[in-house]
Amino acid sequence: MSTPLIDNLQYANCSEKIFRQMREGNVDAVHVTIAYHENFREVVLNLEQWNRWFEQFPELIFRGLTGDDVRKAQSEKRTAIFFGFQNPSPIEDDIGLIEIFHTLGIRFMQLTYNNQSLLATGCYESEDMGLTRFGKQAVREMNRVGMVIDMSHSADRSTLEAIEHSSRPIAITHANPHWWHPALRNKKDEILTALTGRGGMLGFSVYPHHLKDGSNCTLEDFCAMIAKSAEKYGAQNLGIGTDLCQDQPDSIVTWMRNGRWSKETDFGEGSASAPGFPEQPDWFRDNRDFGTLKSGLGAIGFSNEEVDGIMGDNWLRFYDQSFGPQ
Amino acid sequence: MSTPLIDNLQYANCSEKIFRQMREGNVDAVHVTIAYHENFREVVLNLEQWNRWFEQFPELIFRGLTGDDVRKAQSEKRTAIFFGFQNPSPIEDDIGLIEIFHTLGIRFMQLTYNNQSLLATGCYESEDMGLTRFGKQAVREMNRVGMVIDMSHSADRSTLEAIEHSSRPIAITHANPHWWHPALRNKKDEILTALTGRGGMLGFSVYPHHLKDGSNCTLEDFCAMIAKSAEKYGAQNLGIGTDLCQDQPDSIVTWMRNGRWSKETDFGEGSASAPGFPEQPDWFRDNRDFGTLKSGLGAIGFSNEEVDGIMGDNWLRFYDQSFGPQ
Repeated sequence: MSTPLIDNLQYANCSEKIFRQMREGNVDAVHVTIAYHENFREVVLNLEQWNRWFEQFPELIFRGLTGDDVRKAQSEKRTAIFFGFQNPSPIEDDIGLIEIFHTLGIRFMQLTYNNQSLLATGCYESEDMGLTRFGKQAVREMNRVGMVIDMSHSADRSTLEAIEHSSRPIAITHANPHWWHPALRNKKDEILTALTGRGGMLGFSVYPHHLKDGSNCTLEDFCAMIAKSAEKYGAQNLGIGTDLCQDQPDSIVTWMRNGRWSKETDFGEGSASAPGFPEQPDWFRDNRDFGTLKSGLGAIGFSNEEVDGIMGDNWLRFYDQSFGPQ
Repeated sequence: MSTPLIDNLQYANCSEKIFRQMREGNVDAVHVTIAYHENFREVVLNLEQWNRWFEQFPELIFRGLTGDDVRKAQSEKRTAIFFGFQNPSPIEDDIGLIEIFHTLGIRFMQLTYNNQSLLATGCYESEDMGLTRFGKQAVREMNRVGMVIDMSHSADRSTLEAIEHSSRPIAITHANPHWWHPALRNKKDEILTALTGRGGMLGFSVYPHHLKDGSNCTLEDFCAMIAKSAEKYGAQNLGIGTDLCQDQPDSIVTWMRNGRWSKETDFGEGSASAPGFPEQPDWFRDNRDFGTLKSGLGAIGFSNEEVDGIMGDNWLRFYDQSFGPQ
């Protein structure tokens, strides 16, 4: 079987069009975000929407639960959809909901989305208290059932504590190195060294705020950054997590940044003069562009095996190790 | 492999003691009620309690999802626990919750519990309007995902309409024939003929209010009733659904009857002078007594194959046919 193609983070405004683009791009698996600020009942409504899509488009997509579902997707020429939360808001204050959500298919959960959560501190807070009492128990429970801890939007100390406290490798599903582009959301060398030193995975983002030169970032620059990351952290710990927010209206980025917690408008990585979604770089606009990205990795000097790893084999190995009981 | 032993309805106050009694009685599978009047969030809390029990007592019990889980239970000498609702209250007004609950393991749902529900009419109402608009859609959705329609507590017209409207066989999990003991909850010949004529299953109850002579009912009388039922409806459509409410305090039968819908006390099958749980007949007190019941069936003249069918094979065939997509 050929190498799988996995995008380990998207938040597209999904539709038949996008599912067809996944197939055109030969994308075997996508980890989709289904919660930013939703509470328990609200995220169940999002799951119900996905159930409808699975019922409507069975020839295009199905719910992914295990690494073998990626292989099934490859052989059936469909796309396996894996669910994740960017915020622990759906578990509210109830640790029992972690297993309930694992049964419902959730495979990734960020401990924080920018702000302090009940579990840990987000990357926009001025103080970072590390894992909370509930946070330490949630990490243990996620380890037990097989739900991956994702620290993409977390603060440094909290991230280091999650790496250390977790008995299983964790992930930063969508971010780039801070040394390449010193954005608040990109991750410092110390974090990435600790993450990958414990077998954790980094997914590279093509969201323009995470890119050097933003929307004008070149494919060559992006791939050169991946090459340097491979030297520093090992190519086997790297994958893709595009953070593709295709077809979302700007009201959604406002929701992502402000949820229901702010009466003032927080612009996050944007600004008052540029509050909306930034424009994608011309070499990555949608799910049909993974071939371009793959070519870029080859051109920068990666071996075929390394390219295959970054484009999907590494996430698949991580899925195999992470999604079941320990 | 020997014949499986399946009890297709219990509402015991579960505990390690009862799980150990299930093993002592060689009970391979039990369908347990996890909702009477609970709303969505409340029944998820009940599922969380079951997850804790599965985590605490993995050598005794596990969550059953398919007929093959009964075979697994037999080979591993554990008991597979299948979930059901006696009321559609957990799906509230949201048809999407049927598939969510199927994913969480719910395999049976009554369309009503005594009263009118959003789906159909219960057996204690004075008028019976049959399936509602939502009810017809819920039946179709339950058929699609593989959740069994249970009409044990429903009114006659509603039951007949559910049998007719359902594209798959349905169940009356815990009741006896009205011609044997004319209790409100026991089922008339017309209902049982229609049910079994479409391949549906009847589970015989040993709840004293459903028994001729109540707590004093003899094993011989009970088994003679089953023998007559086999002549009328076919032995292959019969099984056991004890309605065992072991170790429950009387406050629970008050909850079952009154939920949150009544300010007056409804005594259901009891009375003001006998408001609590009735005493079990001496030949069936807990999960260790299925051997006695099995002996009684042999003594009344059933063949070994028929006894095996009633004690579990028939429910297993029904599970195999019912719990997956159509």
